[in-house]
Amino acid sequence: MAEGVRVVEELVRAGATLHGVLLAKSATASVRAVAVADLAAAHGVPRDIVSDAEFASAASTDTPQGVLAIAAVPDCPLGSLGAEALGRAVILDGLQDPGNVGTVIRTAAAFGVRTVVALPGTVEPWNAKVVRAAAGGHFHLQVTHASFPELADALRTAGVPLWAADASGRPVGTVERPPALALALGNEGGGLSDQVRRAATGFVALPMAPGIESLNVAVAGGILMHALFA
Amino acid sequence: MAEGVRVVEELVRAGATLHGVLLAKSATASVRAVAVADLAAAHGVPRDIVSDAEFASAASTDTPQGVLAIAAVPDCPLGSLGAEALGRAVILDGLQDPGNVGTVIRTAAAFGVRTVVALPGTVEPWNAKVVRAAAGGHFHLQVTHASFPELADALRTAGVPLWAADASGRPVGTVERPPALALALGNEGGGLSDQVRRAATGFVALPMAPGIESLNVAVAGGILMHALFA
Repeated sequence: MAEGVRVVEELVRAGATLHGVLLAKSATASVRAVAVADLAAAHGVPRDIVSDAEFASAASTDTPQGVLAIAAVPDCPLGSLGAEALGRAVILDGLQDPGNVGTVIRTAAAFGVRTVVALPGTVEPWNAKVVRAAAGGHFHLQVTHASFPELADALRTAGVPLWAADASGRPVGTVERPPALALALGNEGGGLSDQVRRAATGFVALPMAPGIESLNVAVAGGILMHALFA
Repeated sequence: MAEGVRVVEELVRAGATLHGVLLAKSATASVRAVAVADLAAAHGVPRDIVSDAEFASAASTDTPQGVLAIAAVPDCPLGSLGAEALGRAVILDGLQDPGNVGTVIRTAAAFGVRTVVALPGTVEPWNAKVVRAAAGGHFHLQVTHASFPELADALRTAGVPLWAADASGRPVGTVERPPALALALGNEGGGLSDQVRRAATGFVALPMAPGIESLNVAVAGGILMHALFA
């Protein structure tokens, strides 16, 4: 389920398989909301207008803009991705906050990352809050799930190194950007999982002022993605 | 009001003027929550333990960790800041989302920004949600309010240039970092105000992949702060 005018616009634009679009009665006053529902309808997607109360019961976010779409999650197993797509990858290693994961996916799309892999323990990256925070990012890259052994296998086969964000790492400004890279981001509180920490061959960090414990993971990830992929 | 174990720890550590600390009954099982309340009490701050229901009615966030503090907002008018503090400044030009503003303040503190100025139209930077998202950042720099004429005046007097983040700007990777800088970040949807746009003498941007509309402002701000202040 994708909620909000912008996300639904992106879905339609990206040619996603849509099962239906729902418009709240009050949103029929919004030119942009009506336009995106009309566009979907023109592509043969069923469109329904429902009461605001019905819409609210279907929507999962606090501030629905009165438009949502039901779309198929693209089936994209890791094994189907080529070396090129794996060589510009971000690995979500146990991120828990939907807003953070959505923002990471949004940023990844902006900087030309091709693949986002959610490891077990990560919040479901197709959950509606994540999709909303990603503002359409899902439809510009591949978002997929994998176990750590599957991921490690795929990276080895493709010859792509695994790096990870960690306070113990080298300052990102001092590292040379590798031609292919999978970059892992760890859990908000606990950081990297043991398996990622053991398998990673490079660690990158962001030097911070004394007394500061950490950055928000979506911000840290954004700075690292800008340095390593943009 | 500051909520959460981490923020209250930072408050106590930073020597803020605390009026009181409130602990929920259930949080008395948390070693870290009890420790921070004890630490405050050792500094002469009144500490109360209340029922979980009473605590929930006092707290403003959805997931209180059972500890909050009431602290004085430091009085720090713009005119009292020296040229050095103004020369490492971030200007909030109408940011509306408390999470975004808190994250910007957290990142600013991490990269050695000295001053964060909220222009009119920005969400109150001392609001509890902002303070929580900033994870203690408020206590590592000055967070203050100013009208645009006051800000423009202070920057002129201190000889500090005003730059702004804008899609029309030069890619941040290509600009030379000025020795002193005030960097403005615009509203989530509408971007910069006309007055900031007119007064800014430099504009910086982050190049993005084709088809991507924008980044989250806290992420974009984080990348720019890392490039220009860290």
